[in-house]
Amino acid sequence: MAQNLTSLEHLIQILEKFPGIGRKTAQRMAFYILQMDSEGIYALAQSIKDVHEKIVHCSVCCNITETDTCPICSDEKRKSSPIIVVEDPIDVMALQKIKEMKYRYHILHGRLSPLDGIGPKDIRIKELFARITENNDIPEIILATNPNVEGEATAVYLHKILKPFEIPVTRIARGLPVGGDLEFSDEITLSESIRGRRAIR
Amino acid sequence: MAQNLTSLEHLIQILEKFPGIGRKTAQRMAFYILQMDSEGIYALAQSIKDVHEKIVHCSVCCNITETDTCPICSDEKRKSSPIIVVEDPIDVMALQKIKEMKYRYHILHGRLSPLDGIGPKDIRIKELFARITENNDIPEIILATNPNVEGEATAVYLHKILKPFEIPVTRIARGLPVGGDLEFSDEITLSESIRGRRAIR
Repeated sequence: MAQNLTSLEHLIQILEKFPGIGRKTAQRMAFYILQMDSEGIYALAQSIKDVHEKIVHCSVCCNITETDTCPICSDEKRKSSPIIVVEDPIDVMALQKIKEMKYRYHILHGRLSPLDGIGPKDIRIKELFARITENNDIPEIILATNPNVEGEATAVYLHKILKPFEIPVTRIARGLPVGGDLEFSDEITLSESIRGRRAIR
Repeated sequence: MAQNLTSLEHLIQILEKFPGIGRKTAQRMAFYILQMDSEGIYALAQSIKDVHEKIVHCSVCCNITETDTCPICSDEKRKSSPIIVVEDPIDVMALQKIKEMKYRYHILHGRLSPLDGIGPKDIRIKELFARITENNDIPEIILATNPNVEGEATAVYLHKILKPFEIPVTRIARGLPVGGDLEFSDEITLSESIRGRRAIR
């Protein structure tokens, strides 16, 4: 820009790299930050610092938490319940919105992606293995990695290596989203929704 | 959330207040910040600090700048050119995208809004007055406040109080946006586009 605002431009460039933030939103955010009072700036800075200092990984499920072990793993009601394996902590946040969810989790912190050089050693599979080996109260493992190429590959791999444990391993259902529309669904989802059909009770 | 992540939740709540950022985007941003390395966090914090420390208001046009006077006001080629009056610095950024823009600006830092208690003394009208009084090289004043209720009211008010100076005061054209579609335009815009019609050359 011809306006000699390198500091603002620099902030915009940092914000632009955030997921889901385009140039326009980054600009509006930077202007918002510019107009914040010093109290607001302090709160923002402190909050960023807090997140980095207070949040650790749960030694049981690898989820992010401020107390180890995390509240979900310490929850007596979830003892001996199935373990849902997800890619990221944000997935747990999504699943926790379901009322009466009495499951436990294991967070891989990633997915297998040979193209990006991410193999089994780069995600928390070792920890899942240890957890299954050390505990005999796991009735089922539900693979809830994302239903895309990398998530599927990760699920297939986990299914294979978990076989020796003789614990039932399941995969979350794919099909039409509730409130969805056949007309606007892609053919793979449609085909999955037919293959996964269930008897009407 | 049942996950004991108060620091993360706090950051999400701060980010949610940013313009154009909803809950979901705030969540994704917070997770992104959580995953940043310390170098990235430092760059972000430093950049926020820089913006607050380095940016001042130009003593001529009131635009944000890192040098006073700002590069636009110091630009010899823009001397004796019309002044475009806008509401906010972000509007200048938008206008500066036009190639061969040889205008100067005046930034009001707001708009008249009696409902929010914002009157003429709360925006930079005094500075515009002083600028016009002290300089006799202004051939025209172009009012480019936003074409909404408050922007129109601000333009009408400015037009009235600028009359004594006997400088031509104009308002930016309203009409159909280029690439727009009659079918999807509201009736006020359509009516403005007819009223503002021009001879074809």
